[in-house]
Amino acid sequence: MNDSEQAALIPDEGEVGIVEHQDFVSAERFRFESGGSIPELRQRYETYGRLNAAKDNAILICHALTGDHHCAGVYSLEERKQGWWNFMVGPGKPINTSKYFVICSNALGGCQGSSGPGSINPETGKPYNLDFPKLTVRDMVRAQSLLLDSLGIERLHAVVGGSMGGMQTMQWVIDYPERVGRYIALACGARHTAQAIAFNDTGRQAIITDPGWQQGNYSTDAAPDQGLAVARMMAHITYLSDVGMQSKFGRKRRASAKEHFDVEFEVESYLRYQGKSFVTRFDANSYLYLTKALDRFDLHSPESLDATLSPVTAPGLVVGFTSDWLYPPQGNRELVEALLRLGKDASYAELEMDYGHDSFLVRAPKLYKLIRNFLER
Amino acid sequence: MNDSEQAALIPDEGEVGIVEHQDFVSAERFRFESGGSIPELRQRYETYGRLNAAKDNAILICHALTGDHHCAGVYSLEERKQGWWNFMVGPGKPINTSKYFVICSNALGGCQGSSGPGSINPETGKPYNLDFPKLTVRDMVRAQSLLLDSLGIERLHAVVGGSMGGMQTMQWVIDYPERVGRYIALACGARHTAQAIAFNDTGRQAIITDPGWQQGNYSTDAAPDQGLAVARMMAHITYLSDVGMQSKFGRKRRASAKEHFDVEFEVESYLRYQGKSFVTRFDANSYLYLTKALDRFDLHSPESLDATLSPVTAPGLVVGFTSDWLYPPQGNRELVEALLRLGKDASYAELEMDYGHDSFLVRAPKLYKLIRNFLER
Repeated sequence: MNDSEQAALIPDEGEVGIVEHQDFVSAERFRFESGGSIPELRQRYETYGRLNAAKDNAILICHALTGDHHCAGVYSLEERKQGWWNFMVGPGKPINTSKYFVICSNALGGCQGSSGPGSINPETGKPYNLDFPKLTVRDMVRAQSLLLDSLGIERLHAVVGGSMGGMQTMQWVIDYPERVGRYIALACGARHTAQAIAFNDTGRQAIITDPGWQQGNYSTDAAPDQGLAVARMMAHITYLSDVGMQSKFGRKRRASAKEHFDVEFEVESYLRYQGKSFVTRFDANSYLYLTKALDRFDLHSPESLDATLSPVTAPGLVVGFTSDWLYPPQGNRELVEALLRLGKDASYAELEMDYGHDSFLVRAPKLYKLIRNFLER
Repeated sequence: MNDSEQAALIPDEGEVGIVEHQDFVSAERFRFESGGSIPELRQRYETYGRLNAAKDNAILICHALTGDHHCAGVYSLEERKQGWWNFMVGPGKPINTSKYFVICSNALGGCQGSSGPGSINPETGKPYNLDFPKLTVRDMVRAQSLLLDSLGIERLHAVVGGSMGGMQTMQWVIDYPERVGRYIALACGARHTAQAIAFNDTGRQAIITDPGWQQGNYSTDAAPDQGLAVARMMAHITYLSDVGMQSKFGRKRRASAKEHFDVEFEVESYLRYQGKSFVTRFDANSYLYLTKALDRFDLHSPESLDATLSPVTAPGLVVGFTSDWLYPPQGNRELVEALLRLGKDASYAELEMDYGHDSFLVRAPKLYKLIRNFLER
């Protein structure tokens, strides 16, 4: 049985249904790790389920680079597109909203309603653009902690996230060990390899050398869409796997191309679509800032990995995927080995799945069970 | 001992020294596999060593996508930059010019003097640009065969090539079995995977969406350099390996960046340099045509791989590299398995090297020995 056949056997769970986002605005100046600051902090977020009286049933979900706060449900009955982790989050689902109060916020630096380079600076009335301070994963996590303060949540039942969300998860248990009951970090290592940095910088160069970029001062109707689309196409390849792409597309062809360099193979059509649709929902400057935050994330620094991880108290589960070549399993394993070396309660699961880095976004029963049971443990 | 330590033990061989290119011009109309044609065919090439009286000591070297006809020697004593396979080709070297007459020509469709989209169409006095016909590896090989005719070479001692050069090598023994004594194809499979096509198409999109491209009708002083540089940066990553990049660059940093998105990591500096220097020596339209030829190359078509390979008579050596993830070893092995299944004289060597797809360009004694001894066998 392959993953999708197995998935078909899962009984339909409940849905969170129609959801609305909320906005947390803090009028206090927010200071970044780099020393820069912004006059106010905005965090757009969604919640699913109910916070109990003890306020101890909250789970924070941290999204990946191009994800957002909309991780479950739909915005209207007409809208068919569900949140990015809809299969994982809902009544009776692995992250069970009948039991837990689930929070997902748009990352600081993002472009879906939280403060980011495209937000209006209230002091100037104009977008920050490159005046937005240098950003780190630690900044994202501190912004989330202020959101939790505003909701009166002292301690989370769990933090869960994949990829950039996994980095935030690790930063949470390092910076706020007393506030996290347990954690699950998926498809995430201690730091980027040279190759991962190289891909990110190539994507950034595609954007920066697009004449539309204008040193970051583009208007939204003349944004560096061509560069951003190319960056996305390339990045998208790195989220999949050779085997996965081969079985999905192989060398299947489209009806013969009229012009030179028209789409000829199915995989080209798929990727070009990914590029084109991405620019309608993502901001180029956010892409630059967020990829930089990823590249700079390094749990081996400023001291050793062991020193960085020493504050962790919560039990944790790290999940790696065999076909993830962007953040290869050895990076996931390294994290858990260090935690175990330190005597922490940490587990590692390596799932054999063909979807590459994006495996954590795939509807797979073996992933469901891991997450459900670790949250209930 | 690592590869470079081993290399230091190799005694200095002779050098081919100062070389000059030559031009073969055929005034006969050249017809492409696609049905298109050009009024004349130009092939720029270099030769090293001497053709013997029997004209049976010639070795044809086929270059990779961004290589050229200058594979050994220097153009002047002041110029330090040697041909791209200088360590492999020379008096006493593995491809021994004291014994063999070595020919390397710029591929048809290229931009270093052979007919390509940037060449002047003698019928219009203007560059072909996108009027240049659709190109295949078979076309490149047929153009080379006309060059050999002009040199009076009936039969080659050997054809040797890596990557795109490996594809040409295979096409040679399929299309002209009677003209090849033996062959060595390095880092080359029977066809591109979906992932390889995806990377190529992303590179093409970077070029085509550069406003400088102008539907291929750019002038050389306003070429789509930004797009071509991005395409090169991305492709360059795919020629290396995660392990190789990690050991060469890791997370080494440069002096701190002044502006946002300045070079911060060594690997960024290296790659950006690769992109910038590439555009000074390569034509964007050639890049488009050649990558398309690679994507279309498919020995499984129009019939089976076995059917395509059945004309081969020469003994062959296929060399794969463990860290090559662009043309992974299983693709190399597949080729040899088919040859062996057909009862052909074929050998396979899989070298454990960390340089990724570009391993065949690295000065490595174990590669030397294989090539030297197979040519002498």
